[in-house]
Amino acid sequence: MKRALQTYVDGFAKGDAAMVTALFAADAVVEDPVGNPPVSGRAAIEEFYRNAIGSGARLTLDGPIRGSHGNAAAMALTVEVPGADLRIRVIEVMTFDDHGKIVEMRAYWGPDDVVQ
Amino acid sequence: MKRALQTYVDGFAKGDAAMVTALFAADAVVEDPVGNPPVSGRAAIEEFYRNAIGSGARLTLDGPIRGSHGNAAAMALTVEVPGADLRIRVIEVMTFDDHGKIVEMRAYWGPDDVVQ
Repeated sequence: MKRALQTYVDGFAKGDAAMVTALFAADAVVEDPVGNPPVSGRAAIEEFYRNAIGSGARLTLDGPIRGSHGNAAAMALTVEVPGADLRIRVIEVMTFDDHGKIVEMRAYWGPDDVVQ
Repeated sequence: MKRALQTYVDGFAKGDAAMVTALFAADAVVEDPVGNPPVSGRAAIEEFYRNAIGSGARLTLDGPIRGSHGNAAAMALTVEVPGADLRIRVIEVMTFDDHGKIVEMRAYWGPDDVVQ
């Protein structure tokens, strides 16, 4: 699971939305930020990450990725959006199926986690 | 919500299990670590935090507490257990009810997040 999260970060660094999307199960759900309507299904998720990566967003881990004693892992990161001169402080939690694919991604950040 | 999470950290620093427990709703659930059987109800939760604080555990935030656009907040922290000479790297996610009380705490850490 930690390897998948690292691949997710690496996929962003390479600008490779397909690499990121391949980590997700076909019926996965992405809720980013938590509280907004979720993005459901791999096609919509690929579009979501294509847009995110297309915006120039760059991810930096704020510390080691955390695992669990169950089917989930989590990481704290800072998302830089160079064009908009913004940074967003995020904690992302991923839940996995038995095949090691992400079935749910929840990104915790609120309005005051967006800083200049 | 962020203030509640900060109070949680401060309660640990003061060794005050009642201060930490007061943040939770009567029927709250604590899953720490995620994947272990949850602790349910405020009496069991108070016992859980009394034991945790009694062990000498000290919490340090690894970065700013994150909010959300919904009813949840999250933080990355390091738990030091001085007697056991251990550190545990954790991400905790708290979900709140309409009264601002925590109804669910989920702590993400796995065996390899425990370091010496």
